[in-house]
Order: sequence, then C-alpha cells, then structure tokens
Amino acid sequence: MYTLGIDIGGTNTVVGVVDEKFNILSEVSFKTLAPRSAQSLCDDISRAAHKAAEKAGIDYSEISAAGADSPGVISKGICEFANNLGFVDIPLEKMIGDALGIPAVLSNDGNAAAYGEFVAGCGRGKKSLAMLTIGTGIGGGFVSVIDGKVSFDDFGAEMGHFVVNSKGRKCSCGSQGCIEAYCSATALINDTRKAMRKHPESLLWQVAPSLSEVDGRTVFAAAEMSDKTAEKVLQGFINYLAIGVYNIIVLFRPDVICVGGGMSREGERLLSPVRKIIEKNPLGSLIGKNTEIRAAELFGDAGLIGAAALATTLEK
Amino acid sequence: MYTLGIDIGGTNTVVGVVDEKFNILSEVSFKTLAPRSAQSLCDDISRAAHKAAEKAGIDYSEISAAGADSPGVISKGICEFANNLGFVDIPLEKMIGDALGIPAVLSNDGNAAAYGEFVAGCGRGKKSLAMLTIGTGIGGGFVSVIDGKVSFDDFGAEMGHFVVNSKGRKCSCGSQGCIEAYCSATALINDTRKAMRKHPESLLWQVAPSLSEVDGRTVFAAAEMSDKTAEKVLQGFINYLAIGVYNIIVLFRPDVICVGGGMSREGERLLSPVRKIIEKNPLGSLIGKNTEIRAAELFGDAGLIGAAALATTLEK
Repeated sequence: MYTLGIDIGGTNTVVGVVDEKFNILSEVSFKTLAPRSAQSLCDDISRAAHKAAEKAGIDYSEISAAGADSPGVISKGICEFANNLGFVDIPLEKMIGDALGIPAVLSNDGNAAAYGEFVAGCGRGKKSLAMLTIGTGIGGGFVSVIDGKVSFDDFGAEMGHFVVNSKGRKCSCGSQGCIEAYCSATALINDTRKAMRKHPESLLWQVAPSLSEVDGRTVFAAAEMSDKTAEKVLQGFINYLAIGVYNIIVLFRPDVICVGGGMSREGERLLSPVRKIIEKNPLGSLIGKNTEIRAAELFGDAGLIGAAALATTLEK
Repeated sequence: MYTLGIDIGGTNTVVGVVDEKFNILSEVSFKTLAPRSAQSLCDDISRAAHKAAEKAGIDYSEISAAGADSPGVISKGICEFANNLGFVDIPLEKMIGDALGIPAVLSNDGNAAAYGEFVAGCGRGKKSLAMLTIGTGIGGGFVSVIDGKVSFDDFGAEMGHFVVNSKGRKCSCGSQGCIEAYCSATALINDTRKAMRKHPESLLWQVAPSLSEVDGRTVFAAAEMSDKTAEKVLQGFINYLAIGVYNIIVLFRPDVICVGGGMSREGERLLSPVRKIIEKNPLGSLIGKNTEIRAAELFGDAGLIGAAALATTLEK
C-alpha cells in the first residue's frame, strides 16, 4: 500500500505518493494561491492526488491514507490559525479526508518535517529527535519513541518563538527576543545587509554586489574568504543558534537535534562551531554529550515524507 | 500494596510509605550528611524504610517497590552528577533496590515532583503537565499521557537552565542568562537586597529590618503595602517568570503548568499577573489558552509522592 504526502506551503502545495520505505514515487505541485477558500484548496489537492497516483503508475485505490502538513497552529485536525494561508479555525483534516475519500491526518509543517527526518532522515533508528528548521522563520518539532510507540503531535513545539533575549529584538510574532528574530535566514540576511552598509570595504560586497542579492549563503561565502565583517556576522548568528540548540538540549534531551532548512546545507561549517560552544558550557558538556547535532538529510522533502509517514499510523 | 517514596535532598532525606491513592501514611527523615558514600546513604535509607513501615502499621513485605528522587542529572538509574550529594556516575537505582530488597526506580527530583503533581496534585485528570519549581534554584519536569500511557523520565528537563537573556546574568551552572539567574528565590532575594541598599526609604526595611532577614516573601509583603521599590522588584521577577512560563507553553503546550516551590504559596498574587502578561502576547493568547497556569498543591510532598507513584509503574 501507499500513502499520500501533502505539503501545503504559503506559495506552493506539493502532493506526492510515498511507498512503505518512505520513498517518494511521484510529486505533483500547484500554486497554493492563498488566501482562498479551504474547499477550493482541497479540490486542487484531490486533483493533484489523482495525477500523482497516475504519475507513480499506481491505482488511486492503492493509496490507503493521506497525511497533510501546513504552516500555522494545528490542533486535533483543526487549522486554528495559519497566517500565510489566511485560515482561522478550519477543520482541514476532515476536509482533506472528505475530498480524497480516504482517512487523512493533519499536522503542523514543523512537526511533519521533524517526523520525516525521524523516520527516514538523520533520526533513523534513534529514540528521539528535535528539529530546528531555519528558513524565513524558524520551525521545528519534537518526536520521541516511548515504549516502542512514537509520540508525536500531542504538542506542536513553536521552536522559533521561545524567548532567548528578553529585552531583545521585536519578532514577527509580536513578541520580543524570540530565537527567530536572531537565527532565521531572514535575520541573518538583515544582519548581513546591516554589516555591509557599515563596512563598504567588506568582501561581502564581492559576494553580493547589491543588497538585494544578499541571501543566507552570502555571509558563509565571504567568511570563507576570511572577511572579518562576515566572520563577525556569522559568529553572532552561530552564537544564537548555539543558544537555541542548547535550550532544546536542556529541555528535551533528544538523541538527535536536526538542524534543517536551506542553511543546513552548510553542514559542518555551521554545526561544528555550534558543537564547540555547547561543549564549552558546563551543563552543555554534561548533558549535551548524549545529543548528536546533525544537519537535515531530507531538506524540502521532509514535510511531505513526514506527513505521508504520519498517514501510515492511520492505517493500523 | 504500598510503595515507598524516598526523597533525597542535599540536607535531609525523607522516606515515606504511600498507599494506592497516593496518601502518605508515614514519614521518617534523616540528615543526608552529604558528601558521604552512596552505600552508607543506602543503608540509612533501608533503616528508615523499615521504620516507616512500622510507623505506618504495615508489614515491610507489603511494600512492593520503591521510588527515589535526588537532585542532579539522572539517566537510566545512574546519578551521573549531583553536586549537592557529591555523586558522579553512581548506580543509585540499583544500590537502593539492593539495599531495600525490592524493585526500585530513580528519578530527578524535579521530574518526581512534576509526576507527583500530575497524579495527585494540580495535574490530576489532565493529559500533560509541565512543572517549574522555584526554590534556591529552579527545577522542573514534564509529564504527559500518550494513548493512555504516562510518558515520563525519557528526558529530564533542566527547566532552570534554558537561556532567556543571552547576554545576561551569570548563572550558578556556569552559563549566562539562564531563567534560574532571574527567577529563583535566590535571585529574588538578591534583587530585594540590592533594591533595599539603594532605597533606604523603602518599606522593605519594615518587613525585613536587616538584609539577612530578607527571604522570598519579603518583597510580596512590602508590595502589598504599596511600596514602590518592592513593586518594581516584584514586577521584574514576574516578567521573567512570565517568560519562563511562556517558553514552556510554546515548546511543550501542556494542559497545566504547575508553579511550585515555597513561592507558589503566594498563589494568585504571583500567578494572576503572569497570566495577564501571557494573554497580552499574540502567540501566548493564541496557544496559551489551552494551558492552565496553576500553583502547586503538594508542596514539599510532591517529590516523595511522585517517586512513590513512579514505583507503582514498576509493579506492573
């Protein structure tokens, strides 16, 4: 049997057929076109699902269940609030299930990605994984196995919004000093631009000849060229990432912390200094030794695979 | 059948017989006398256990299992590090079980207290509880029910040591800006004394005529008398407590956050302003509405009851 993974994003929605070993057999994507009615979105999801089955060369009836993930606050199948989609209190799980004619489950995108990495990525074979996904904002989730059973979705961790600097920067959520305000790609890009304005001599200008060309990789490239300004911006970012990872260790003590999002492609350039900071911390060295800090393996597929994997829990 | 609860503290150790409804039938306490050998401590625990059985009017053979809790980093029955006891990598769970001749389980004191409140205190009937115990330091734990099974002890949350102010105060753990450095009774007492030195006119001097008489209640008593200095100190403390509670909500989303420790006896004077701050926060008002913020009910008995309750999970 197969399951469907449905990754609903603010810009694109991807529907894929996934097999029992968590391989994606086919993908069909379409523009989410938010804000629009949830019913119209579900109709498009259903059309994409049938196309994805065809593309995978399977019969639609071979799909046993569907798992969907979306941004926002999700609780018991209800999309309580999703700013990017314009949804408030939408019973999206039921609506997707009805549109597809199969059992469906809905989860927060951060949770789904964490689950994907847990079952098929850097958490394979581990007993617990916490994920910190660095993108426009910061998402995440926590998965653990208790007595052989996967505990998941009982809570959705808003990993981007724990406060790390109580008198610090304004965050997009309206609060102050959240990790997201320091450690998202958005924050890194803003910090890079600010440093460039202040340092016209910086090699950052070689990597990104104009401020609009700055992205999350700019500072890594210039730091590689030993540019002092870039190194300073990067160090500031890494210091905050280390605090984020540290807070997760002291609170959750997972076997693995998976750092995801585009920036995790920097791999050891990003993670090695984070590990060093945590090892230097007394409590970090003590309880942190049981936690591996790893880069994501599934990247953009983590949500879809995680959602599809969640759907397999419905079959039983 | 009965279980034993063994609450090992830096100063005193209490051994109690607990019945199936989590009532304490008898208690025997002795000086922990740390640092000393773990074997000698276990011998005293065994003696106290037999005395406690006698005091409860039961036969020692009616005790099916024992649960012990101690400060420090506990993992899989090993006391990896307990500063107050002078223990490093001590297999305390096995040693206690051997000394008592019954199955034993060992947990961190914060976790045990959380479990106690969960089964017999302010978390009764709830599906999840996070605890923040405010004392000399800050302890805590997280308990949840997943598919009818209590998930516990898979991780021990170091609730006192998540960083809330990255460039902030030195913490006793060696790190910087931990919640414990702002929100423990120790921090409140230090802040009260500092304010008193600066404000000789403050009514704080009426409540505590000398600095050595300041305790965690001093500032509450003076604030009650509308003393501006006391109000300011208290507001600072409450702001940090709100951040601690907020961080727990966004990460754990428990049904109940139980605020414990001596200060929780202030009840609504402490918790009502915390709730107001969280309600004013956009994300706090959204996802915080599912979390009750409550004062502990079991106080000093939470650890012993929680440990004894943990022992009941061994019987099955």
